[in-house]
Amino acid sequence: MDAETHSYRIAVDCMGGDKGPAEVVHAVALALEKLEASDKLILVGQEPVLSPLLRLAGLHTNPHIEVRHAPDAITMTDKPMQALKSKKNASMIVAFEMLKAGEVDAVVSTGNTKVLVGAGTIKVRMMPGCQRPALTAILPRKSGFTIMVDVGANPETTPEQLVHNSVLGALYSIAMLSTKKPRVGLLTVGTEEGKGGERINKTNAYLKELTKRLDWFEYAGPVEGFDVFQGDVDVIVTDGFTGNIVLKSVEGLVHMIKELLSGKVKQNPIYIFGILLLYPLLKAVKGQLRPEKFGGAPLLGLNGMVIKGHGSSNRYGTSAAILMARNALKSGVSSRAPEALSEVNMMLEEIKEEMAQ
Amino acid sequence: MDAETHSYRIAVDCMGGDKGPAEVVHAVALALEKLEASDKLILVGQEPVLSPLLRLAGLHTNPHIEVRHAPDAITMTDKPMQALKSKKNASMIVAFEMLKAGEVDAVVSTGNTKVLVGAGTIKVRMMPGCQRPALTAILPRKSGFTIMVDVGANPETTPEQLVHNSVLGALYSIAMLSTKKPRVGLLTVGTEEGKGGERINKTNAYLKELTKRLDWFEYAGPVEGFDVFQGDVDVIVTDGFTGNIVLKSVEGLVHMIKELLSGKVKQNPIYIFGILLLYPLLKAVKGQLRPEKFGGAPLLGLNGMVIKGHGSSNRYGTSAAILMARNALKSGVSSRAPEALSEVNMMLEEIKEEMAQ
Repeated sequence: MDAETHSYRIAVDCMGGDKGPAEVVHAVALALEKLEASDKLILVGQEPVLSPLLRLAGLHTNPHIEVRHAPDAITMTDKPMQALKSKKNASMIVAFEMLKAGEVDAVVSTGNTKVLVGAGTIKVRMMPGCQRPALTAILPRKSGFTIMVDVGANPETTPEQLVHNSVLGALYSIAMLSTKKPRVGLLTVGTEEGKGGERINKTNAYLKELTKRLDWFEYAGPVEGFDVFQGDVDVIVTDGFTGNIVLKSVEGLVHMIKELLSGKVKQNPIYIFGILLLYPLLKAVKGQLRPEKFGGAPLLGLNGMVIKGHGSSNRYGTSAAILMARNALKSGVSSRAPEALSEVNMMLEEIKEEMAQ
Repeated sequence: MDAETHSYRIAVDCMGGDKGPAEVVHAVALALEKLEASDKLILVGQEPVLSPLLRLAGLHTNPHIEVRHAPDAITMTDKPMQALKSKKNASMIVAFEMLKAGEVDAVVSTGNTKVLVGAGTIKVRMMPGCQRPALTAILPRKSGFTIMVDVGANPETTPEQLVHNSVLGALYSIAMLSTKKPRVGLLTVGTEEGKGGERINKTNAYLKELTKRLDWFEYAGPVEGFDVFQGDVDVIVTDGFTGNIVLKSVEGLVHMIKELLSGKVKQNPIYIFGILLLYPLLKAVKGQLRPEKFGGAPLLGLNGMVIKGHGSSNRYGTSAAILMARNALKSGVSSRAPEALSEVNMMLEEIKEEMAQ
């Protein structure tokens, strides 16, 4: 990352999403409109597939685009270790190699999450002071947004790792949502102390003590499921098991409501008039929820910027993920994290000693 | 419970809900319309408050209604052990005493969940063969309903307890939703084996082996968050930590969408015409989701029927909870459970021995 000229090189894995490379090329075209003149996008995938698509989109001579040939692709059923061994030439793995070698500043992929997390961790490696990566979702709330971390990278999270997630989430909130002093809540059942088990109690004690010694984020205490969409915290910290299940359940519910509505409209087309009349309202609500705006989930804690786009992303979603990578690079969030983690880890050792006394 | 005459006595805790005893009396009036002639509702609460309310509702001479005076009430901040010690005359505790003494067949309460679970477990006691109670939610899916168990009674659930939850959930699905051979899914992250940690792996192995030996429920394997609303399993088994957070997150999201919509309508009243036009559509979708139909969450695994109504229930929600108690009693679900659990526990011992070899 070159902070002086603010020019960033982002590798885009073109072979991972459900909608195929053509949709990714459309996403690249959309993203280019908003990127800065010095930025570069490196499209990683099968060159014989990508070149005609770029020509079709009128992008084949665009100086901001490069193609890096990768003959293989990760599928949705591949497993991390297997993929690392037998699919060294898959687009996602090649993109990670480029990030590791410093040829790019970020990787954006809509591919297999498990391989992304597993192979990403091994290839790109953990940031100093961090033990496990954390997948991060940006969720709407009544006013503003909540960052939820972890939503699936690390299902069995220790108290120390939950503290790390708090630090990474708070830094991300400051950098990307311009939060002044983020309020971090610990997701559990019931907000009184002693509920939720040993892991929650320890994390709660650590975060309480830690934020007495730190001035750049605040600990709001334990929060409940209701607070995910209705609360007033900026960051919700949880383990990757709970976070993943919450996120996917919510996605399933939204999907079900959409299906129910469209099924009813098909049964009785008269409803279409009501929907037309309500169109600006529905659009405004959708705008407030803005799923496209946050088409990516950053994988925090690695030695490099990795953004996971939703597997079913269309061009708008993937374009949003590319722009998210660009904005995250520009914010400098990654460069601040190792120092913050190292300070927090030192404090955590002190706190543990004091607690043991 | 008297199965021959099919007459049931249900204690209704009148002092617990957010909307106060007047709303509960309205709920009782609604429920009476659908109860059978021989059923009785025993309203537990402050007699000087309840009597005038019953008179106002024209129910003071109704032969199906009795009042049991309980001078005290559990508040939302009370804790189980404290409440059991210092609030022996609270309506919820008195209702449990009545259930324990066999004076009633079921207790319905919209009060403090933690006290309900904690005091309920101590007063009513666990069913033989069951270790911990499980709070159960009935959620809509594309076609039909999914039973999710546990949604908050037992945050740290062991593999054995997850198996018990499967048995209780499957029995409930058979009894209350007329499912022929319920399909049970184990909620986790990723459906391949080895994901989700030791507890999930053990439970997965137990359920696999167990359903080879049992013919009345089926194990569908691990399921993901997306399957809660989009899947095809009849019962979703999870620990009370994850289940509680999923349920409350979903509630928060639905609440947020409602608020966004009503906020926009207030900003621009023209939308009201669109909403009127769409009214039958919205009503049909709401009907399909039918929150009122399942206004109660049964607390399974106890030596008696306890139904938790949502704290914010209105008369329709509480009335649904009362009718749910009645239907659950009629279905005989509680009487079948101890035998099923004892059989499953024996099989589980065999399976553990075989696995250890």
